[in-house]
Amino acid sequence: MKEILVNPIGIINTPFKNQKNIPIQGCFKENIEGVCNILDKYSDGLCDLEGFSHAILIYHFHKIKDEKIKAEPYLEPVEHGVFAIRSPYRPNKIGISIVKIKKIIDHRLFFTEVDMLDGTPLIDIKPFVKHFDNRENVKSGWIDKHFENGSIPKQTILS
Amino acid sequence: MKEILVNPIGIINTPFKNQKNIPIQGCFKENIEGVCNILDKYSDGLCDLEGFSHAILIYHFHKIKDEKIKAEPYLEPVEHGVFAIRSPYRPNKIGISIVKIKKIIDHRLFFTEVDMLDGTPLIDIKPFVKHFDNRENVKSGWIDKHFENGSIPKQTILS
Repeated sequence: MKEILVNPIGIINTPFKNQKNIPIQGCFKENIEGVCNILDKYSDGLCDLEGFSHAILIYHFHKIKDEKIKAEPYLEPVEHGVFAIRSPYRPNKIGISIVKIKKIIDHRLFFTEVDMLDGTPLIDIKPFVKHFDNRENVKSGWIDKHFENGSIPKQTILS
Repeated sequence: MKEILVNPIGIINTPFKNQKNIPIQGCFKENIEGVCNILDKYSDGLCDLEGFSHAILIYHFHKIKDEKIKAEPYLEPVEHGVFAIRSPYRPNKIGISIVKIKKIIDHRLFFTEVDMLDGTPLIDIKPFVKHFDNRENVKSGWIDKHFENGSIPKQTILS
């Protein structure tokens, strides 16, 4: 199989210089703000994105060197396959996050629900479309027990 | 910014040999079955994924050569920025699809809600987690008007 060459479309700037206090998913720490700084040549690609409340960011876990085919996730000390967890220690080290769009000014997309490190290379932005991206009747395997009765486990924020 | 080298983790096989009759998103044609054939070295990564009802597949639009920074989406003859549409003619040509897991046998993940071409290089699989991935109070910009009152536009299946 052929290698695929990916060229970042910009850089994500966030207040998180390292993993300390970062949420495992942006929805667990809502008020932090981040910015996608898109290369000028792609700024027209943001046209009409402001009509959407949310976007899906696809990016590179650029600080991660290793891959772990089975690993313990942040939520519990039990090993699972890498494709059943959201760990960054994965083949290809590509992350996705759903973020909340605040505003777009020129080549910059301001957002909240931030869960990525400062300096993260951005690969793509897609509009979050409720008619495609929300799912009903979802079973979330080993994760569901950690969110029973609407509780939020404390391991959702890294220490 | 540095290039990122991506090595496919496997191949997706589907009944769609070309765009004809393919849905723009898998949820619009539910009964078609596809298979992710993972490289043997990654098969342990599928461990415990079967407890999830849905997965997010990240893959390469390998048949697409061009990029269009503004383009008409399938749903309407009006140009929007590429980051406000889900067109494959995008920088980096990376696609994501939420699919429904049917079963996992060894290195093979069988799924429905298929919207990718046969032979698509697979880059990553993530578990779909309702506590992270569903969003409430979503505005979907120029797309919402096409789904008013629960209607499904006919352009959701390509001709």
